[in-house]
Amino acid sequence: MAKQFTLAQIADFLGETWQGEDLTITGLNTLEEAAGSDLSFLANPKYIKQIATTKAGAIIVSPNHAGEVKNAIISANPYFAFARCMGLFAEKEGFFQGISDQAFIDPSASIGENCTIYPFAVIGANAKIGDGCTIFPGVYIGEFCELGENCTLTPNCVLMSHTHLGDNCYLQPGVVLGGEGFGFVRTDFGIQKIPQIGHVHIADNVEIGANTTIDRAALAKTSVGKRTCIDNLVQIGHNVQIGEETLVISQVGIAGSTKVGNKCTLAGQVGLSGHLTIHDNVTIGPQAGVTKDIPENSVVSGSPTMDYSTYMRHCILQPKIPDLFKRVSALEKQIEKLEQELDSKK
Amino acid sequence: MAKQFTLAQIADFLGETWQGEDLTITGLNTLEEAAGSDLSFLANPKYIKQIATTKAGAIIVSPNHAGEVKNAIISANPYFAFARCMGLFAEKEGFFQGISDQAFIDPSASIGENCTIYPFAVIGANAKIGDGCTIFPGVYIGEFCELGENCTLTPNCVLMSHTHLGDNCYLQPGVVLGGEGFGFVRTDFGIQKIPQIGHVHIADNVEIGANTTIDRAALAKTSVGKRTCIDNLVQIGHNVQIGEETLVISQVGIAGSTKVGNKCTLAGQVGLSGHLTIHDNVTIGPQAGVTKDIPENSVVSGSPTMDYSTYMRHCILQPKIPDLFKRVSALEKQIEKLEQELDSKK
Amino acid sequence: MAKQFTLAQIADFLGETWQGEDLTITGLNTLEEAAGSDLSFLANPKYIKQIATTKAGAIIVSPNHAGEVKNAIISANPYFAFARCMGLFAEKEGFFQGISDQAFIDPSASIGENCTIYPFAVIGANAKIGDGCTIFPGVYIGEFCELGENCTLTPNCVLMSHTHLGDNCYLQPGVVLGGEGFGFVRTDFGIQKIPQIGHVHIADNVEIGANTTIDRAALAKTSVGKRTCIDNLVQIGHNVQIGEETLVISQVGIAGSTKVGNKCTLAGQVGLSGHLTIHDNVTIGPQAGVTKDIPENSVVSGSPTMDYSTYMRHCILQPKIPDLFKRVSALEKQIEKLEQELDSKK
Repeated sequence: MAKQFTLAQIADFLGETWQGEDLTITGLNTLEEAAGSDLSFLANPKYIKQIATTKAGAIIVSPNHAGEVKNAIISANPYFAFARCMGLFAEKEGFFQGISDQAFIDPSASIGENCTIYPFAVIGANAKIGDGCTIFPGVYIGEFCELGENCTLTPNCVLMSHTHLGDNCYLQPGVVLGGEGFGFVRTDFGIQKIPQIGHVHIADNVEIGANTTIDRAALAKTSVGKRTCIDNLVQIGHNVQIGEETLVISQVGIAGSTKVGNKCTLAGQVGLSGHLTIHDNVTIGPQAGVTKDIPENSVVSGSPTMDYSTYMRHCILQPKIPDLFKRVSALEKQIEKLEQELDSKK
Repeated sequence: MAKQFTLAQIADFLGETWQGEDLTITGLNTLEEAAGSDLSFLANPKYIKQIATTKAGAIIVSPNHAGEVKNAIISANPYFAFARCMGLFAEKEGFFQGISDQAFIDPSASIGENCTIYPFAVIGANAKIGDGCTIFPGVYIGEFCELGENCTLTPNCVLMSHTHLGDNCYLQPGVVLGGEGFGFVRTDFGIQKIPQIGHVHIADNVEIGANTTIDRAALAKTSVGKRTCIDNLVQIGHNVQIGEETLVISQVGIAGSTKVGNKCTLAGQVGLSGHLTIHDNVTIGPQAGVTKDIPENSVVSGSPTMDYSTYMRHCILQPKIPDLFKRVSALEKQIEKLEQELDSKK
Repeated sequence: MAKQFTLAQIADFLGETWQGEDLTITGLNTLEEAAGSDLSFLANPKYIKQIATTKAGAIIVSPNHAGEVKNAIISANPYFAFARCMGLFAEKEGFFQGISDQAFIDPSASIGENCTIYPFAVIGANAKIGDGCTIFPGVYIGEFCELGENCTLTPNCVLMSHTHLGDNCYLQPGVVLGGEGFGFVRTDFGIQKIPQIGHVHIADNVEIGANTTIDRAALAKTSVGKRTCIDNLVQIGHNVQIGEETLVISQVGIAGSTKVGNKCTLAGQVGLSGHLTIHDNVTIGPQAGVTKDIPENSVVSGSPTMDYSTYMRHCILQPKIPDLFKRVSALEKQIEKLEQELDSKK
């Protein structure tokens, strides 16, 4: 059953005051979509008119709006308070506990305390699973993999051999870590495969999105730093190194041996060539194509990338380029005419 | 065994007339590639010469070409008749029937009549599976999911908790529905995760391509409307709403909270920013990057997008831009010379 | 346990000479990252200073650098010798042997000699698996599929019915072959689905990257030629034909019925429209958008594509376009002034 709390219980959890009727809250929603047993919030003043029409049973508001609402929690930061409520209502994914005898666990693997291993999960030889991990169905953990504590591998994730996860990592469904890097070189005697003998190393508190792929290194390791969050369908090539607290949005592709610093943000569908260095605190706009190193604190966009203000002017001017061609043609005719005129006066 | 029909049986199925020998047809192919027991078709007059050289045993032709072919089905619309034959020869995917005792079905799940559940499928607590559904191996259906009637989930599809499918939905392999949306915000005290407590809601008759990912909503639901078709490796972010009868081609990415209308077509590798509204009947060209709302009945292309005619001129002119720079430099020199000439005459 | 060899054993394997101490080598790494029991290599002269600081136990060097290193293998081509060592140290993925009784194998399937089939793999009716194949957990092989000899299907790969693999094919995790092509057409009476009755045909020695999808043909087959290598998250549409020894880098999308020749290279995130012909030995730069046929031996880039030298000038000039607009405006003013001046003199 879904969770429910009284308005007073929620205010108590938030450490905030409340007013009105202490009704039972069964869910959270926007002002526009809330039902009568939902709690909502008003953070952006542009939605203030919705207070009159919302069906929400109660609203989190800032003190200056408390007079306009009957049932309310009063908070200096309604958005942040609401986000904390989302954590309160969030349910842990899954329905199974313990270690299924329909999982396949190699006898040489070691499993920590309080782990959950679902049916049809596979844990390979000499793998080590830390305490409190949850391994969903269809997950494959290859030989010599090591998982820290409290990792969650949702259905059908694959960790090929020797992959290392830190503590508290969360993998959405279908993630593939440690597939072979694309080590093919064209030679006079055909395509040669360079065997990929490195590994993937994921630090603590990393989240990885659905169907994202991170390749094992040719040598040494492909690595992702602490608290970095990677979205769905991202491709990370062999020997890439990503720093800490970086956000990588969906469908980004990072070619081999590129380094991305700490606290960077790579927007959706960005492509990075190989062997680049993206320094700390860089923001790269959507669909950008990066072919050069980027210094720290930069904001870039475009393909190939430009600094952000140049890119914005480029975007405004791009549809005017056909007109620019016409203007140049007109100038050429005017010049020709002027030249003729001057010539005729000589 | 593959299906086979006589020419007369096929004509009867189509409700059309036939001529020539009533041979046995074992397959369908183009005029160029057909073998002697294949049925082919002539729809585009540019292929008419192939009638002389094709090995096809019989051909679907329009009445005005009936005289040029021996064994034929005569149809006013040969292409459409041929497409119907493809449905006749199509075989239902799969080889297993009934409910495997090697599947894992939580006792609290409810399974409709006439379902097929393959080995190694997992159906979670309180899930409801409608009549006539087929659940292939490696599929994971989380707790409280609901499937309508006659849905097909091919191998290794994942539905995280509370995902809802209408009737007659067809999921290609590796689809992930209900993974957590990318709810990370950068704050002064590090990256904060916004728990994602909404769901995914797919309407009737929707088809979803291989390894496509659709994230659960932060609040409320991410939704896809009736008869919409989504191709492979598409990413659909949290709280996106897609209308009815829309086509989304492969590798498209749609960022959070964007709304796409009815009868839109999004070509391959298109990227849409978040919080946009794409109105009904919009066509977006391949690789376009959409950063603004798009009014109904528009055709746009480019990154950022332009209306289609501007984009086509842009494409023609883009390779001429280096030359335009030269023309402007030449003009600048001519002007300078003219100015000097005029000055010298003062 | 990881592999280890003495320096003399490795030199013997390579057919090269060695010098110094015959120490035990337990791994391979770059000069910068090597530990004392690692073998490294010097191929690029720009790293020569690292010879003084590396911790590598031994180094593969060319004859002219032999004097600068104590423990060394001497080779005319240190990079190539090192790559061969990577093959020596590479370990075959996996930990299981034989045919698991926890796999599901339809009684009508035929399994060759010396195959390994992991738990929770599924092999469908009338499928034929050649000798020496390895089928990892979560793999689904549909009815009437045929695999040649020595194929490896890593975890969670899916082959839908009638898919054909040649000998020595290697599929990274999560590959989907034979999903239905996107055969939807918009008609006056709604979206119609064209059933996809063709297959996927992969030739010998093909490698396919993680979570890549290749659709079955509408008719006949979608095909990939010998020794072609495809990276992760690539989308290949129905009836595409790819030649031999072609490299397709990650996140490329190829629309239906396009033909790609032999020895082509498609860089990351390239998109190809449908029904095109890319001839042999073509190189296409990253993120390019291809809308026209490309003649053989071409190098193209950009979206839409230009020849490479035009594209490079385009990249240099693109950030200067805002300035070009200013220059044209300045010219227009100058011209106007000149015209007035001339008029006043009439």
